[in-house]
Amino acid sequence: MSKTEQLVQHLERLQINDMYKKDFYWTWDKTDDELDAIFTVADALRDLRERNISTKVFESGLGISIFRDNSTRTRFSFASACNLLGLDIKDLDEKVSQIAHGETVRETANMVSFMADVIGIRDDMFIEEGHKYQKTFMDALDEGYEKGILEQRPTLVNLQCDVDHPTQAMADLLHVIHEMGGVENLKGKKVAMTWAYSPSYGKPLSVPQGIIGLFSRFGMDVVLAHPEGYEILPEVEEIAAKNAAASGGSFKKVNSMEEAFKDADIVYPKSWAPFKAMEKRTQLYRAGDKAGIDQLEKELLAQNAEHKDWTCSEEMMKLTKDGKALYMHCLPADISGLSCKEGEVDNSVFDRYIVPLYKEASFKPYIIAAMIFLAKVKDPASALRAMEARGEKRKEF
Amino acid sequence: MSKTEQLVQHLERLQINDMYKKDFYWTWDKTDDELDAIFTVADALRDLRERNISTKVFESGLGISIFRDNSTRTRFSFASACNLLGLDIKDLDEKVSQIAHGETVRETANMVSFMADVIGIRDDMFIEEGHKYQKTFMDALDEGYEKGILEQRPTLVNLQCDVDHPTQAMADLLHVIHEMGGVENLKGKKVAMTWAYSPSYGKPLSVPQGIIGLFSRFGMDVVLAHPEGYEILPEVEEIAAKNAAASGGSFKKVNSMEEAFKDADIVYPKSWAPFKAMEKRTQLYRAGDKAGIDQLEKELLAQNAEHKDWTCSEEMMKLTKDGKALYMHCLPADISGLSCKEGEVDNSVFDRYIVPLYKEASFKPYIIAAMIFLAKVKDPASALRAMEARGEKRKEF
Amino acid sequence: MSKTEQLVQHLERLQINDMYKKDFYWTWDKTDDELDAIFTVADALRDLRERNISTKVFESGLGISIFRDNSTRTRFSFASACNLLGLDIKDLDEKVSQIAHGETVRETANMVSFMADVIGIRDDMFIEEGHKYQKTFMDALDEGYEKGILEQRPTLVNLQCDVDHPTQAMADLLHVIHEMGGVENLKGKKVAMTWAYSPSYGKPLSVPQGIIGLFSRFGMDVVLAHPEGYEILPEVEEIAAKNAAASGGSFKKVNSMEEAFKDADIVYPKSWAPFKAMEKRTQLYRAGDKAGIDQLEKELLAQNAEHKDWTCSEEMMKLTKDGKALYMHCLPADISGLSCKEGEVDNSVFDRYIVPLYKEASFKPYIIAAMIFLAKVKDPASALRAMEARGEKRKEF
Repeated sequence: MSKTEQLVQHLERLQINDMYKKDFYWTWDKTDDELDAIFTVADALRDLRERNISTKVFESGLGISIFRDNSTRTRFSFASACNLLGLDIKDLDEKVSQIAHGETVRETANMVSFMADVIGIRDDMFIEEGHKYQKTFMDALDEGYEKGILEQRPTLVNLQCDVDHPTQAMADLLHVIHEMGGVENLKGKKVAMTWAYSPSYGKPLSVPQGIIGLFSRFGMDVVLAHPEGYEILPEVEEIAAKNAAASGGSFKKVNSMEEAFKDADIVYPKSWAPFKAMEKRTQLYRAGDKAGIDQLEKELLAQNAEHKDWTCSEEMMKLTKDGKALYMHCLPADISGLSCKEGEVDNSVFDRYIVPLYKEASFKPYIIAAMIFLAKVKDPASALRAMEARGEKRKEF
Repeated sequence: MSKTEQLVQHLERLQINDMYKKDFYWTWDKTDDELDAIFTVADALRDLRERNISTKVFESGLGISIFRDNSTRTRFSFASACNLLGLDIKDLDEKVSQIAHGETVRETANMVSFMADVIGIRDDMFIEEGHKYQKTFMDALDEGYEKGILEQRPTLVNLQCDVDHPTQAMADLLHVIHEMGGVENLKGKKVAMTWAYSPSYGKPLSVPQGIIGLFSRFGMDVVLAHPEGYEILPEVEEIAAKNAAASGGSFKKVNSMEEAFKDADIVYPKSWAPFKAMEKRTQLYRAGDKAGIDQLEKELLAQNAEHKDWTCSEEMMKLTKDGKALYMHCLPADISGLSCKEGEVDNSVFDRYIVPLYKEASFKPYIIAAMIFLAKVKDPASALRAMEARGEKRKEF
Repeated sequence: MSKTEQLVQHLERLQINDMYKKDFYWTWDKTDDELDAIFTVADALRDLRERNISTKVFESGLGISIFRDNSTRTRFSFASACNLLGLDIKDLDEKVSQIAHGETVRETANMVSFMADVIGIRDDMFIEEGHKYQKTFMDALDEGYEKGILEQRPTLVNLQCDVDHPTQAMADLLHVIHEMGGVENLKGKKVAMTWAYSPSYGKPLSVPQGIIGLFSRFGMDVVLAHPEGYEILPEVEEIAAKNAAASGGSFKKVNSMEEAFKDADIVYPKSWAPFKAMEKRTQLYRAGDKAGIDQLEKELLAQNAEHKDWTCSEEMMKLTKDGKALYMHCLPADISGLSCKEGEVDNSVFDRYIVPLYKEASFKPYIIAAMIFLAKVKDPASALRAMEARGEKRKEF
């Protein structure tokens, strides 16, 4: 039996009737079975592609990407996912000098979506705004489809908002599943999602939020560590706590990197900005207070500089389980002595984990493709089987 | 009988032998039957797509878009049209700090067209230059094809020049045809193409010109209204007058928005720059007179500000037929109290017409695709029939 | 017998077992048979396309283009080649304000290549850096493929580095082969690759290097001419000399344009920067010495201005064989009295050769496609035969 057929049989046992035609905002909107389905389809699509079997669902159609922030890897992951399924990519590059107004979003949403099957949006610049932008956009498409403006209702893939970064967190977790030899081996594993020092300012909170919101669902012991004053969205902490309770794991917050690293199986040290500062920043942007923004940046950089000891050094790594925890990062990392003087991680640590780090990233195109697949294909198990049976070669000759 | 088959049978009755391998510059170059064919093919392509039937003509090939001005909606409409027919899109982004020289245009035209089936050009920045650029470009491609440089002679779709905006005007009219329940119902309807105040400067004249040049062909009473000093190209006014005489309608110019709106079935209030000022602007650009350009802009903004009462207010709308004229706009509009303090239209009016406005825009990809189709397919009726019979699914599974 | 079949039979007689899965850096890495194979496949692909036969190898997949310098014609040639073979194009636009670091290149290489079959890189800005960038990039992809990060190992097409410009030189030579009526007619022909004055600064050396490195392999008399102080890379001169000796031709350096043009069958007059100055420039960039760079630019422009008599004038052309040498240029040229006051070539000369110049350029997409084809298709002769037999139409209807 092929790997794809095995995965299809697993897929058939899942309750996923609610995925068809649904958007993907946050992992915690989805049931355990639905997340399982995404991992399963991602693995199946990868298996088919490795065997040079076409995974086209669409013979034409567009995937629209909207990046309200710079991005190379997510941009290419989205493009790769669209290509895998047969969609052409068209980028909408918006200059984001200010927060978008509802009516403009509504109009843009319809104007770019006439032939669109998928919309990928990254908008993580302003806390309280990123998710709102995506929601406004997709509500406008609901209306556009109902009223006959659009021939089809495109599906959303959240490529990062102010709350969650689901394609990142899901790719990260699929990497962990493969590293640990199966989802059943995650129970009881300790994960340290910790803040780390970076010489830059204002990195998004969606990665730590996405990680604790997702990893807490698999019976793991999730520890969130950061210096005082670097709190993340309290709503997401609550979700992590509930998830942990339900899955038989735990969720804990500490203000010590050492404590988090102690005996950890997995470490994810990464810089982010304090939630309260980001809230203030949004208000300053709304008010157009340029001087206030510059002042805030200065304060935050000074605050950051007090925590240069929060770094993933060789010493810190020795504290982890057998000194060999799986080091993770969403990339690009601030590497001490390489990309900056002092940063999130020692060069020697980073260098040792380069192959797993790139593998971690390599799951993202498949995760995105699986999200699209499950939202656009009515009977995903049959479709995967039909693809395998069809056996059309991706590369001829 | 399917809708597509009905449309095909209509298409077969039209005299359209002169469309194959022909460019699309201006609607008034085309016969009534040729315009009818574009509407018919646009409707058929939309019907096929709504029924998930592939409309691919090309298995590979490029659609080249050249935007010498910013554009989101036309860019996406062109991309959508190309995708619908199986072409990949490649954008040529030229920085237009100056007017292009003939020889440069000739070279660029050949260099970007080696595998191109379609060229879409938007060049509306300079009066007397936009059309000339397109003509120079396409003449160079004639030579390139004849001399064996190009394997095929790409077809032009004028995505807006200084004279006409045919994809806009045709999409607008197809919207009107659908709203009115058929082209036969247009006779005797009153259309008000009127100037409206906007706080910005130098909007192109191609929309009002395109509208009066096209709408005057269907027996409608076309009224062009603007304050004194906001004249459009006199050549196009003459065309509109001749069209009206031939079609049993009328064409009239007035200097009162009220008079134009009175009992109108359709209103199209929109800002544009005066033709004579735009002529002067072109000369200043040719001379590289930056100070002169700035001075001209100031004068025009001051002139604009004298006509803030030219706005599509609720009061103005009450003057129209039953107070319920179809409000049209090419988007984006300057909406009073929303996108600007005082603009082309009251927010409450605009908001009431959002769905029809978006529908109006939704015809543009199909109009563009129909223009390409009729220029590249030798026997369009048979081709549409073959597509329907082929029945290849656009979205599998 | 079709032209394609004739070409396939020629292809079958060549020793090209080492092309599959190999990158294309420099022409002198390749054997004579391998270069012959590229010309042969390019001609076959062109023949198939002219006959409206699909040449798709890939049913999905990406071609990634990385342009670390502006480019319109190479960008479109690469896009056209990818489209011809069925690949979608995704551009990576890197802002090149500084020289890329090895680790960053390694990471970027993997992050953009998850679904990539081809990588096209143009990096000619800094001497000693362009080739290094490409090599670092491709070494990273070797590792990525071996370690299971990438499903396939994309192939490199060097779209211009600091050493060679193989797609240009190969397209140029294929043009010459067609103009001369076959590769067997090249023996004994005199080619003048000469420096010419341009009002601009720092044009890359890869064109003259690429031309002498390639043209010297066909028994031609290759003359490299430039004013003193405009030396090119000595390593490439050595290669040209060895090639000439092996092929029964000659390679000579002179400091006189007249001498080079005398009785030449082919002339290629083009501006470039002195190698030693470019070396110094790289060092200044490495040191971030902006003032030094500006000073160097001034000196080089002054040096250039002393050689305005190095121009392809009508008088100069009269010196060539029967006054009718084939004039070549990679475009865009600096045309005296048209694009600049004094430049590389007289307007009347350039204008007389426009059609052959555009034809010369028209081979580039096919050369690129042939390079990809031979690197990705295991049995190229069978594949071409199968394409012809398959007979799928590129344009249906």
